[in-house]
Amino acid sequence: MHNTDAPFDPREFRRALGMFGTGVTIVTTRTASGEAVGITANSFNSVSLEPPMVLWSLAKSARSLPVFQEAQTWNVHILSNEQEALSNRFARAGEDKFAGLQLDSGDGEAPLLPECSARFRCKTAFQYDGGDHIIFVGEVTQYDANGHAPLLYVTGGYALASRKSQAIASEPQADANAAYSENLIGYLLGRAHFQFLNGIRKPMSEQGLTDADFYVLSLLSIQQPLTPAQIAQHVAYIGIDIGQVALQSLARKGLVEESAQLPQALQLTAAGNESILHLLAAAKAVEAEIVDSLGEMDAVTLRNLLKKTIAATDPGLPKLWQAPAASAAEGAAQTVA
Amino acid sequence: MHNTDAPFDPREFRRALGMFGTGVTIVTTRTASGEAVGITANSFNSVSLEPPMVLWSLAKSARSLPVFQEAQTWNVHILSNEQEALSNRFARAGEDKFAGLQLDSGDGEAPLLPECSARFRCKTAFQYDGGDHIIFVGEVTQYDANGHAPLLYVTGGYALASRKSQAIASEPQADANAAYSENLIGYLLGRAHFQFLNGIRKPMSEQGLTDADFYVLSLLSIQQPLTPAQIAQHVAYIGIDIGQVALQSLARKGLVEESAQLPQALQLTAAGNESILHLLAAAKAVEAEIVDSLGEMDAVTLRNLLKKTIAATDPGLPKLWQAPAASAAEGAAQTVA
Repeated sequence: MHNTDAPFDPREFRRALGMFGTGVTIVTTRTASGEAVGITANSFNSVSLEPPMVLWSLAKSARSLPVFQEAQTWNVHILSNEQEALSNRFARAGEDKFAGLQLDSGDGEAPLLPECSARFRCKTAFQYDGGDHIIFVGEVTQYDANGHAPLLYVTGGYALASRKSQAIASEPQADANAAYSENLIGYLLGRAHFQFLNGIRKPMSEQGLTDADFYVLSLLSIQQPLTPAQIAQHVAYIGIDIGQVALQSLARKGLVEESAQLPQALQLTAAGNESILHLLAAAKAVEAEIVDSLGEMDAVTLRNLLKKTIAATDPGLPKLWQAPAASAAEGAAQTVA
Repeated sequence: MHNTDAPFDPREFRRALGMFGTGVTIVTTRTASGEAVGITANSFNSVSLEPPMVLWSLAKSARSLPVFQEAQTWNVHILSNEQEALSNRFARAGEDKFAGLQLDSGDGEAPLLPECSARFRCKTAFQYDGGDHIIFVGEVTQYDANGHAPLLYVTGGYALASRKSQAIASEPQADANAAYSENLIGYLLGRAHFQFLNGIRKPMSEQGLTDADFYVLSLLSIQQPLTPAQIAQHVAYIGIDIGQVALQSLARKGLVEESAQLPQALQLTAAGNESILHLLAAAKAVEAEIVDSLGEMDAVTLRNLLKKTIAATDPGLPKLWQAPAASAAEGAAQTVA
């Protein structure tokens, strides 16, 4: 183990402390003259239930220390995962942190910020010495909470939480040395994806559509018109060769047509538009079931992690959701009959 | 906001406090007579850097309170995501919590548990009143940390963390009202899955294998022999009809053969085994790239969330990794030539 006698590396010590995940709070109060003061802190914790008490600590070197030492009341805000920018704003010194913020508090009261995961109005109960910090213990006089998934701070960076579930522990594995484990991310991605698709196979087959048809229609629902070459470029990574045949079949079904503005490029017909909206409604029903089962906190984290996985494996695909290129005809190398 | 004057609902108050995520620690010490004592606590936090200090609080009603009040030294262990059982063990009263545990500490020292994300040896600096709790502030004399992703406790349950990344913020969306959003879990699963597969398409095409071939070979690498009907049952949810043709093509390529023990059922040939091992090695290389990019903490969380998504959308598939059914022939309705 590292000794904290000299020579002592504070950065390494902080890294070890950072293994303890925390939420992120903003603590606010007012100066004697009524000026709003606030600071980001993750040193918060609950202390007592009867009386209800919480604590946090502030560096003795902090400019706002004398304000908090004199203040009779202060508010703690547990930040939601959407308040990272607010956390950064209150972590920086100098600027007018409250500029443009709408407050839920009355004149002269300690500032109360909206949209937080939970909030606690406190009156100072104790101030204790804590080395180079002062520990503030407050008695909670009022509180509220909304369901917003909280922002976390873990190992030196912002983080999201997801519920850890015993119920989904690993299946007993007949051969622990088998090359193909159920913990392979590739397997888990494939199974989750195909089970998702499974939920929209019924409307797909009712419309006589293949997986490839679905990918092309959903692509055109985001960006159109697109040339066959552009469609192929977007869809190539799924391993399906969108050749003339598939596109001609969609045209024959009356779901896509040649663009009037951009010859050779394809767009959805009214029927094609209706068809993809119908399928997307089915997809959203599956999505709602998943979010319902996982909970909003886990859904936020899952989306975040899938986006990171996509970024980590991106073969350099064209952006899907950006405004269409100035001239879609640039990629026009193929035509559809 | 809720007032904490009577009538005051402690459960509701605890729920609001639970919005502040925390790590999970076990704090250990010894009685004057040398008996090991330990308790699970999430009221830990860092306090001071110079001198290095941490704090945690313990209920005045706790049986171990007098022991900690008398102890000169105690150890704080930040638990890893694999130590949930240890957390539960030390959260319960009564049993011999240290039974069977191997300790890293010498005789008479406060017990030091192995495999934790970080550990801090402390000597008591202050004991402060905190309502119905005592706040223990300790000066850290030694510490260490390993890279294990930490266990979290958020909104009343164990949780895992994942790094929140600004870099993967949403792409600007041309039409915010579009039905198909890049935040659809279905889209994200599909894209992540296909990009993963993309990484093994080269060895697949070198071997002249289709996606369907790959699924059948990997299935047989987990469980074999399987009848064509069983194979079809396992693979049906991916939307590929594994009919006679695909299996016959694998047989013609010399990758699968009829089982000697179980006529009509299929097993991998030596060449088939080699072929799937080659593909799985490529898959593991993609996996390693993802884990490298996301970090181990995020990889653990991603696997956990994908398993939950699979559980939420499971159409009732047969278990893959359980020991094969007593008689695989039960499902034998088809044969392969």
